[in-house]
Amino acid sequence: MSPEDGGLNFADRLFAAVLEKESPLVVGIDPDPRQIPPQVFGRPRPNEGVRAFLARGVQRFSEAIIAAVAPHACAVKPQLAYFERLGPDGLGAYEAVVACARAHGLLVIADGKRGDIASTASQYAAAYLGEGPGRPAAGEGAGEAEKWLTAADLEGPKADALTVNGYMGRDSLAPFLNALDWGRGAFVLVKTSNPSSGDLQDRRLLAEGEGPGEPGQGAAVSVAELVGGWLEAYNRERAGTWGYGPLGAVVGATFPGELTRLRRALPHTPFLVPGFGAQGGGIGDVAGGFDGRGLGAVVNASRSVLYAYRDSGEQAFDRAAARKAREIKEALKARLFRL
Amino acid sequence: MSPEDGGLNFADRLFAAVLEKESPLVVGIDPDPRQIPPQVFGRPRPNEGVRAFLARGVQRFSEAIIAAVAPHACAVKPQLAYFERLGPDGLGAYEAVVACARAHGLLVIADGKRGDIASTASQYAAAYLGEGPGRPAAGEGAGEAEKWLTAADLEGPKADALTVNGYMGRDSLAPFLNALDWGRGAFVLVKTSNPSSGDLQDRRLLAEGEGPGEPGQGAAVSVAELVGGWLEAYNRERAGTWGYGPLGAVVGATFPGELTRLRRALPHTPFLVPGFGAQGGGIGDVAGGFDGRGLGAVVNASRSVLYAYRDSGEQAFDRAAARKAREIKEALKARLFRL
Repeated sequence: MSPEDGGLNFADRLFAAVLEKESPLVVGIDPDPRQIPPQVFGRPRPNEGVRAFLARGVQRFSEAIIAAVAPHACAVKPQLAYFERLGPDGLGAYEAVVACARAHGLLVIADGKRGDIASTASQYAAAYLGEGPGRPAAGEGAGEAEKWLTAADLEGPKADALTVNGYMGRDSLAPFLNALDWGRGAFVLVKTSNPSSGDLQDRRLLAEGEGPGEPGQGAAVSVAELVGGWLEAYNRERAGTWGYGPLGAVVGATFPGELTRLRRALPHTPFLVPGFGAQGGGIGDVAGGFDGRGLGAVVNASRSVLYAYRDSGEQAFDRAAARKAREIKEALKARLFRL
Repeated sequence: MSPEDGGLNFADRLFAAVLEKESPLVVGIDPDPRQIPPQVFGRPRPNEGVRAFLARGVQRFSEAIIAAVAPHACAVKPQLAYFERLGPDGLGAYEAVVACARAHGLLVIADGKRGDIASTASQYAAAYLGEGPGRPAAGEGAGEAEKWLTAADLEGPKADALTVNGYMGRDSLAPFLNALDWGRGAFVLVKTSNPSSGDLQDRRLLAEGEGPGEPGQGAAVSVAELVGGWLEAYNRERAGTWGYGPLGAVVGATFPGELTRLRRALPHTPFLVPGFGAQGGGIGDVAGGFDGRGLGAVVNASRSVLYAYRDSGEQAFDRAAARKAREIKEALKARLFRL
């Protein structure tokens, strides 16, 4: 645990970063070799595997983007799929990206959308968020393997938060909640930004124990509201400085009505809002995710920042990304901040 | 694409393996360093990182298990979380395990429970299932980066199938369906084996467009039935030799009533049934997942096989695993096969 984690609620850490940078912008690191300027890759080294070669270029590109956007963003969100695609070398590039972002003072949200039974989910939590200082098994009396595992978890750089899929139910979230106790975060998928997100997430539920012929009195909640309700119940008891608890929700920018409705229904739950930019969400679309102080949410833009050079006529991809990130930051700030 | 994939429906490949081995047993490879016999690890090499050291032991253990259970199982299911916990070296061990299983003639089901928006899900599909021979972009006229990516996807050994989380809706499944066209498989989470799976999956849905005060006529479907219905609609048009399509469902052994009900509701959908053994499911509990011929499902056992040595007094962990796998195979065969 680094000192800045000490005793903090992840929402406090997140919004402290937002206030310091005056920016709720999260830059998504989705490095697609087909969209990275070819000169970034150069040529393979002798006997270098293709994945190692591509991973080097992906890392170089991502590090340049991080350095360029650091003044304008509170966090970066590496998308694990792009790194996993390049195998072990890709995962090495992911870890280099995490270390680079932390060195630039940025929070890191690992976008893996993991979820599994508790014994497996605890492996994902350890892999991406590490293990806390209070881990009892690593102390006196722990077995040899337990001590090795604790050392292993300290070896790779860890993210500050991980995105999580709650389809498997509340016990599958429990291992991630442990990590919240020592300052790490999790964002659980509630209402996602993709076109088909409504297939399941918008469907409304019968009250428990209620038959289709015996409708309940209250309004039926949607699947998104059910999952959001789990998070809100947890956060209500753990609100920090700004009134938010540490367990976040992913709520997309592409359904602004839902975003506004969920902001009202989940007043203690911090939101990660993807879908801004390339997926179609604009400044007006994300406004409903914020509270009256301009807090409560962070907004992710990935492709629109990373590949800004393609539309800008600007030859230097990092300068184009910095300009785009600053532009989004200023637009969000003008619209949202009343502090 | 290897020749055995040619033109085949994944369900045909899966059940051909079941019939050849006379075993619907899948052995889950969940290598937990705390449960692996310490002598498997030996001592670290000079200057070796902790994760590299543990990954070598995990690989050695997994390869010995695969060799031991190969005569008794149709497939193995490496659980990615245990490998990811060990970082890039762990992912290297995962790839070695995939290659080892394929060399032993076993199918490989990568258990990653991935799911994301389509552009990201296509990265997961390429990472774990590879790209098919017909990939148009890799041919004439493709860009340099596209050619490198195609070469990269050929570099690492790929699994035969991947587990997938459908919370994000049908468009998030589409990239995995592409891989089905050339013989790969996917198993989508429907009703999982963990205690809280009912939190969301058992909840029943109002019909679309129906208010809580205007109940529909039909029986309300559960979330599990909704997701299962997507798979069944796809498979119905694509049934192979045994009447099953290539898009599988994960349905746990720990809720045998649900398993039986879902088998009836989804007659063209192959099932992967976890939760057998350490999680509590027994032979009687899984029977409802099979059709009258003993096909339609495969059953996963992980910890009860991997760590059988701990209960058996048997010093050799691989012999203990082989004995346990054979015992499960014989019990399943006696109960299920009527071919």
